[in-house]
Amino acid sequence: MATLIFPDHPSPVADAEALRKACQGWGTDEKAIISILGHRNETQRKLIRQAYEDLYHEDLVKTLESELSCHFEKAVYRWILDPQDRDAVLLNVAITKSPVEYCVIVEISCIRSPEELLAIKRAYHIRFKRSVEEDLAQHTTAPIRQFLVGLVSIYRYNGDEINERLASSEAQILQNFIKEKSFGDDEVVRIITTRSKNQVLATLNRFKVDHGSSITKHLRDDPSSDYLSAILRTAIRCISDHQKYYEKVIRQALNTVGTEEEPLTRVVVTSAEKYLKVIKEIFSKRNSVTLEHAVAKETSGDYKAFILALLGND
Amino acid sequence: MATLIFPDHPSPVADAEALRKACQGWGTDEKAIISILGHRNETQRKLIRQAYEDLYHEDLVKTLESELSCHFEKAVYRWILDPQDRDAVLLNVAITKSPVEYCVIVEISCIRSPEELLAIKRAYHIRFKRSVEEDLAQHTTAPIRQFLVGLVSIYRYNGDEINERLASSEAQILQNFIKEKSFGDDEVVRIITTRSKNQVLATLNRFKVDHGSSITKHLRDDPSSDYLSAILRTAIRCISDHQKYYEKVIRQALNTVGTEEEPLTRVVVTSAEKYLKVIKEIFSKRNSVTLEHAVAKETSGDYKAFILALLGND
Repeated sequence: MATLIFPDHPSPVADAEALRKACQGWGTDEKAIISILGHRNETQRKLIRQAYEDLYHEDLVKTLESELSCHFEKAVYRWILDPQDRDAVLLNVAITKSPVEYCVIVEISCIRSPEELLAIKRAYHIRFKRSVEEDLAQHTTAPIRQFLVGLVSIYRYNGDEINERLASSEAQILQNFIKEKSFGDDEVVRIITTRSKNQVLATLNRFKVDHGSSITKHLRDDPSSDYLSAILRTAIRCISDHQKYYEKVIRQALNTVGTEEEPLTRVVVTSAEKYLKVIKEIFSKRNSVTLEHAVAKETSGDYKAFILALLGND
Repeated sequence: MATLIFPDHPSPVADAEALRKACQGWGTDEKAIISILGHRNETQRKLIRQAYEDLYHEDLVKTLESELSCHFEKAVYRWILDPQDRDAVLLNVAITKSPVEYCVIVEISCIRSPEELLAIKRAYHIRFKRSVEEDLAQHTTAPIRQFLVGLVSIYRYNGDEINERLASSEAQILQNFIKEKSFGDDEVVRIITTRSKNQVLATLNRFKVDHGSSITKHLRDDPSSDYLSAILRTAIRCISDHQKYYEKVIRQALNTVGTEEEPLTRVVVTSAEKYLKVIKEIFSKRNSVTLEHAVAKETSGDYKAFILALLGND
């Protein structure tokens, strides 16, 4: 399901030397950087960083930061980090933005597995010397705070067991509060943030059967929709079908006048080694054009070449 | 700091055989059970359970449950479990009681380290096929829910770094809300549940310097004190000095007419391998009588003998 194309056993030392060469002297050889980093998997990138540190006593990430610029720099920086470290950085950037970029927080909390989320929180501790929860709580206020901190902090059960009776009663609770437009009600927060993802899915399915249409349709059709209903909708979409959700993020980023590189980068770097192929298929079906074609049309320069490499261009 | 006395290399197989013998035939040899289990550390108990399973294809915990009774049974059951599994059971019992026994939830959340708390949450998943957060949220309502779920769920930063300026500003925030008796205010919950324990301690110290007395004194002196103020006070005491807190739990348990075995058992089994010696010293100083003497006076039978064994009686 990954799109990344990489060789079997590249030499980390040769890669580190080639990257050093690309960064030395006048100008930077971006093509060389893309040809290496755009075609190495997580383990291989880690070994290159280690080899670079051993050879030159410098952090490759810092070297690249000083050599590259703009969207290309950001994309390379996101890409070269370990997944949990990358998500910790994405969370920190989203939390310290004004206003808080809630969709990134919801995405990471709801799409990553409980164990992955835990690794991200550990990485956040190490990198920022604080917890993600305290930063998030400090930068938000009720009732959004309660929802977002709940999503980030709860260590959800990850088993397959489903309680159908519970799904039925909690679908009814959701319906009551959605009817009253109390999207941030304590009970809505409880159900969406604390239940296992499989249990939430069972509740959402029950809702659809009992009320004729999905919760997200109810929320979308509500003219009074606000931040809370948007958070709720994003959380539900991420839990229900995150690949479909990611396709929409990419589509909106590409359709914005001038293109929004940040969300495009985020989705591509976080899913290139996982399920970007599926997102590409959904995109092609939905838009009657390949994702590569759309990216090539809407982006440019080294950034375009790098994103296309992660999308599977050889 | 532990009180438990145990031999260096007891044979798990011999122990398992002796326990089997003690449980067979008419009656049960409680003395034999105490002489073994009351003098084995965590690893040794685990090896005995494994040896028993291998020898008899039965779970020793289940065998003991069917042979023992009342407070003695409960104490042995709590003791024989791994610490994280024991805490998961304690949490589940506290959550499903009516009313919810909030002090156990606060104790475990605030006294255990972030990594220990995580292990407890994992053990809860395995044992109950649900998360502790979803059970707790289901059995409580706002504003207590928010406080307790926050305490249990946040993965606190565990480093030594302290931000003195933050401590000063958050001490002021606490003062404002305590003056208004808004103990469950969102900001109070945020500060106490999300900050690292060292940061909370710095804030509490700042409060004391700025306002002349500790927060707990302010809360204790408040005639309108309610559940929320009690939760807040317990959390602060557990974070500030959990050994002093545990001494008080034991003292109150022993001073109650008829004695409260549950809290006594809880403190003894959870701290016998850690810091029960310190609690004993605080108890002796505070009450001018040794803890062993008080326990011997207020309890009886096999339960008494077992608790005294864990307290360090040879």
